[in-house]
Amino acid sequence: MTSSAISRWASTPPVATIYLQSQVPETAELFLLLGMLVSVPRVRRIPSLKDKLAEIHAAEPSFGLLGYPILRASDILLVGGEVVPVGRDQASHVELAREIVRSFNAAFGPTFREPVALIPEDGLLPGTDGDPKMGRSRGNTIDLFDDPAAVDSKVMAMYTDPRRVHATDPGRVEGNPVFAYHDAFNANPDEVAELKERYRAGRVGDVEVKRRLAHALNEFLHPIRARRRALLQDNPTIVEDVLRAGETRARAEARRTIDAVRAAMGLDYFS
Amino acid sequence: MTSSAISRWASTPPVATIYLQSQVPETAELFLLLGMLVSVPRVRRIPSLKDKLAEIHAAEPSFGLLGYPILRASDILLVGGEVVPVGRDQASHVELAREIVRSFNAAFGPTFREPVALIPEDGLLPGTDGDPKMGRSRGNTIDLFDDPAAVDSKVMAMYTDPRRVHATDPGRVEGNPVFAYHDAFNANPDEVAELKERYRAGRVGDVEVKRRLAHALNEFLHPIRARRRALLQDNPTIVEDVLRAGETRARAEARRTIDAVRAAMGLDYFS
Repeated sequence: MTSSAISRWASTPPVATIYLQSQVPETAELFLLLGMLVSVPRVRRIPSLKDKLAEIHAAEPSFGLLGYPILRASDILLVGGEVVPVGRDQASHVELAREIVRSFNAAFGPTFREPVALIPEDGLLPGTDGDPKMGRSRGNTIDLFDDPAAVDSKVMAMYTDPRRVHATDPGRVEGNPVFAYHDAFNANPDEVAELKERYRAGRVGDVEVKRRLAHALNEFLHPIRARRRALLQDNPTIVEDVLRAGETRARAEARRTIDAVRAAMGLDYFS
Repeated sequence: MTSSAISRWASTPPVATIYLQSQVPETAELFLLLGMLVSVPRVRRIPSLKDKLAEIHAAEPSFGLLGYPILRASDILLVGGEVVPVGRDQASHVELAREIVRSFNAAFGPTFREPVALIPEDGLLPGTDGDPKMGRSRGNTIDLFDDPAAVDSKVMAMYTDPRRVHATDPGRVEGNPVFAYHDAFNANPDEVAELKERYRAGRVGDVEVKRRLAHALNEFLHPIRARRRALLQDNPTIVEDVLRAGETRARAEARRTIDAVRAAMGLDYFS
């Protein structure tokens, strides 16, 4: 990509608009208004809120944490989101956004469209430690910016079948994170099928399966790393540029939404 | 007041800045951020929230209603409020604002000053129906814009001492709304003292006490009505002008607060 193409891309990303939520204050406005339409027991029923409380060892949420599902609905509705790609565990957030749309439209007239959740069929990728939930704060991720050595060492430390002691023991493929990653990232399905067969039969060691996974992951990540390097070399502030361009586009869209919401709710006193 | 003096007053009210909360979206931003510092059980303990739930016949608040005390704290802190004139029943809101200031400053460094509640010593004026709480929605108010006839009829219908049947029965002055209003609005303390004495002795009827109150109230309201009429005659859009001027001033102040808050919280990515 030439330098001018990059700056064009940065000012108008052709596919995605990326912005920082905190730089789009209209999010807070919509959050405040939509919060009037959701009962406290309803937000308390969102399953991931319970998970979060357990995670931070809190018996009771802060008001802000309790409002997190409404804030996510605001994120979706502020920019007129129609299809929301989420993990299965986040589907309840989209469901709440849909309920809010129905309540709002019923109370103030048709204003929003109901968004739809787009949930990947393969479901969730487990963490490298076997935890069904992967997360930065859990320290069980492989990151897009990890260098090959970091990927190697993370993969070699991955959780596998705990009941398997020797390479000659038959191993379990199902629920084994190493194979879940092979399925998701290895570009060579024949290799994966062969490894699974040998694993089940006790004819391959964990070390070989992991080395092949590390290789496959590095193959997958290599072009991403190279592109990142090239983009940053051409324009060291590209990340900030993309975020600022995204902010401008998002705020224009957000302004239209807020204007429509205020008009519907009769809050447009001076227009 | 001349027309140019009025427009000067409208553009820069010399004493108070009056604005519509919904026209200052920074309120919502601050609300969102401060909500992270208050636990749900803490907001639930605000007494007036319970009153409000009883009033609207709801067992559980909406998320927005639950956040009302935090929104009021945002109102105060957004414009750097130092002294907050409130009725005694609203003191718990200022107390919450003070707690939020302490939490915020402890977490993010000195940013806000603790506001102080200014509570009138006379306490609350009861409603015309004797309800200790006066409110528009209760229909027990005398309004600043009521014309003399409306004041007369509201006063003549006021609740007095229910145990008094005849003008010759000794009456109770304490807790009697008519005398509470006399104390608050009658510019002639001698007349009030004389009426109280005769009332206690059963030597004056309710009708006379009320007629004198209606007269006193109309004397009190007359200059307010006259000034309002003159202002509107000179500039029919003065209310809107004052609100818009207030909005401009409030937003400038609000912007400064939000910038300080974002800097303290590390949310000022691009500045």
